[in-house]
Amino acid sequence: MNENYQSENSSDSKKSIGLIPGFSKLTKEEKLKFICERFHQTPKEAEKILKSFWHEDSEVQKNLDEFSENTISNFPVPYGIVPNVLINGQNYFVPMAIEESSVVAAAAKASKFWFTRGGFKAKVVNTLKVGQVHFKWSGEKETLFNVFEESKEIIRDELTPVLESMEKRGGGLKDIELLDKTDVEENYFQLKATFETCDAMGANFINTVLENIGAQLKCIFDDLSYDGELEIIMAILSNYTPDCLVNVEVSCPVADLAEPSLGMSAEEFAEKFATAVRIACIDPYRATTHNKGIFNGIDAVVIATGNDFRAIEACGHSYAARDGQYRSLSKCEVENGYFTFSIDIPLALGTVGGLTTLHPLAKFSLDILGRPSSKELMEIVATIGLAQNFGAVRSLVTTGIQKGHMKMHLMNILNHLGATDEEREDAKIYFKDNIVSFSEVKKYLSDARDYQ
Amino acid sequence: MNENYQSENSSDSKKSIGLIPGFSKLTKEEKLKFICERFHQTPKEAEKILKSFWHEDSEVQKNLDEFSENTISNFPVPYGIVPNVLINGQNYFVPMAIEESSVVAAAAKASKFWFTRGGFKAKVVNTLKVGQVHFKWSGEKETLFNVFEESKEIIRDELTPVLESMEKRGGGLKDIELLDKTDVEENYFQLKATFETCDAMGANFINTVLENIGAQLKCIFDDLSYDGELEIIMAILSNYTPDCLVNVEVSCPVADLAEPSLGMSAEEFAEKFATAVRIACIDPYRATTHNKGIFNGIDAVVIATGNDFRAIEACGHSYAARDGQYRSLSKCEVENGYFTFSIDIPLALGTVGGLTTLHPLAKFSLDILGRPSSKELMEIVATIGLAQNFGAVRSLVTTGIQKGHMKMHLMNILNHLGATDEEREDAKIYFKDNIVSFSEVKKYLSDARDYQ
Repeated sequence: MNENYQSENSSDSKKSIGLIPGFSKLTKEEKLKFICERFHQTPKEAEKILKSFWHEDSEVQKNLDEFSENTISNFPVPYGIVPNVLINGQNYFVPMAIEESSVVAAAAKASKFWFTRGGFKAKVVNTLKVGQVHFKWSGEKETLFNVFEESKEIIRDELTPVLESMEKRGGGLKDIELLDKTDVEENYFQLKATFETCDAMGANFINTVLENIGAQLKCIFDDLSYDGELEIIMAILSNYTPDCLVNVEVSCPVADLAEPSLGMSAEEFAEKFATAVRIACIDPYRATTHNKGIFNGIDAVVIATGNDFRAIEACGHSYAARDGQYRSLSKCEVENGYFTFSIDIPLALGTVGGLTTLHPLAKFSLDILGRPSSKELMEIVATIGLAQNFGAVRSLVTTGIQKGHMKMHLMNILNHLGATDEEREDAKIYFKDNIVSFSEVKKYLSDARDYQ
Repeated sequence: MNENYQSENSSDSKKSIGLIPGFSKLTKEEKLKFICERFHQTPKEAEKILKSFWHEDSEVQKNLDEFSENTISNFPVPYGIVPNVLINGQNYFVPMAIEESSVVAAAAKASKFWFTRGGFKAKVVNTLKVGQVHFKWSGEKETLFNVFEESKEIIRDELTPVLESMEKRGGGLKDIELLDKTDVEENYFQLKATFETCDAMGANFINTVLENIGAQLKCIFDDLSYDGELEIIMAILSNYTPDCLVNVEVSCPVADLAEPSLGMSAEEFAEKFATAVRIACIDPYRATTHNKGIFNGIDAVVIATGNDFRAIEACGHSYAARDGQYRSLSKCEVENGYFTFSIDIPLALGTVGGLTTLHPLAKFSLDILGRPSSKELMEIVATIGLAQNFGAVRSLVTTGIQKGHMKMHLMNILNHLGATDEEREDAKIYFKDNIVSFSEVKKYLSDARDYQ
């Protein structure tokens, strides 16, 4: 071990400013030791904590470690189940990986509510993915467009080996379009390509094809002596996939919404709910939190099935701003005595390849869901987003969200502080009218214990 | 155990459509058994997989279980370290929880690059949080505004016990504004409140205050007999916090960017890099993926420190669309021989309360970071976002991203398939010119083994 890696073990060791070289070259065990010795007052304790999250089977752990880099442990995210999600007449039990309380409970409650009211109707609208080759061309526009048109087939032919396997599965490169963007940036043009990637998310496939197209384009314009220079800036997929869209809706006669727990009539509830959704459409401050709630549900299933939630988030929020204002992704209509709540959301998901195949719990999740196609997974994920949203807005317009939230939070804190069953019951009563926070609960518990 | 919970153990058991009641009432062990028996061909194997991810200490596991609902296991996310992140002259080792390959490596590479070029300069611009009470008022506008103005102080007084603890820490309710929104929705008004929540993310505090304000407002207008009716639609924090903003930048003379690995001159690189960032500003398709890369870095630190990444994502993307078009969150300038790359991003983060205190690895992460204030954490998180973005764009405009990606992906698949060291080396050579996919690697390995 390098001398640099000795523990300083002083409280302001983190204040050092010198570069500490070679961290990535250390073994996993050395990295872990270094972090614990340098940043913890009790390194042995710290080591034990990190190692306690390792998987017992070293092969499984190695597998997890190599998904990323400089790994020293696993961050555990609670993995739970939403039962009875009725989608297109089929009853799913949906796995969610989420650390926030009330999310699974809200999805479960909403799913149960709609189970007896016809369930969720989901429909994949289309499944196109997008990729771009961004480049500059300093010559005549006409030359560019003509040569591109002439070369299109050659480019395609050259791609044959790269496309082969995807084409066998029914996918491939659907179209390449040359776009003139010189009005916004000097000499800037773009090849915009669309892809069908079947059950794969397809990022690696798309990027490989695009880099190949970029290289070919460069060659074509370098080899022939056109008057002008072509520079490839970058070639990469776009996570914005407005044509990889799924629609989900629930609907029922307004009268059927009636439930004692609403605390109001079905008509009043329907109106109030629809108003809340309209507000989320009108006001970006509200829209942000409204959509955040949708992604509480969506991301949890996306993670549980080994998909990439950053891609899903970026696409969904960008889509929410497509008309020039950031708006709600869901909408609600109350018309002719009918209540309809729906969502349109782009979701580029995969059920083969990537982590879906490699992560042991992602595989497990797909088993629970009956090994769905990517289209079926789009329907399931969007449904949980809508269920989540229904649950959140329902709470907001009826009891408010703090009631449920604070109860969960209180239980977490009491657990953490090792409260007995009796103390938990007493605390529940006390905190009905008092704000729950870690320090308040700690104080309450310590006072109660002193009093005994 | 209820009869309903017996295994059907047939391949289309998932096709059943009847509601299966009482799942949430089962114990954790019963839930787990039910899921495994119903959805797996080999339930005993499946049970073993789920249980293998439990924490060995049942107290720790119970703690994790109760963060969420219907939990049956933990979903492990690789937890790694980015070394040598120089922010405002201080060297941080930053923990990241992320399942995507190349992300930690890219952040590490970018951090190292900038370490010797002055490091990252980060600055918190402001720290205000936002909350809203949405309501309808059917009476005269003037009455509403007058009564609100007169009641403002009473409302504040009534809030004293709720605000007390936060005010002691230097935070509290900063302002309440009454907004007329009747131009977009009939009778719709809004109280927009701003908060300072110090080192807490503050969601529970804000929501409690808002529900209290809403209830008071309702009381005031119900008690007195004004001509008109006031209906509270909902009261909740907004995750859109454009005034909780942090700025990070890196800069150096263009000549200092020189590095053999760029494969081009420093000037050429600077220009190409700046063009790529401009394109992400101009084109929403590119902006989505550009920002997705930023959140690859941001979310990983947000998760590792026990914060809520859905809130951070929703806010950031909504902010990216604030001028009416969805754009890049980062920007780049090359001027007077100087290269400057920067980001402005709203980040409402906490370092006390919630999971930051309760999740064992979140606590650990904050220890590694030297127990930062929420402001310091904003700086760290935004820095990793910028580092990530620098790394991604640098790759895109130089070698392309597939080279690094495919190497990582290949290693993951080879691990999964239990390849020997020799097979790994041979595969690396073979896949230099062939597309990496699970099926291709499996086929390659099987062919290679047959040949032996």
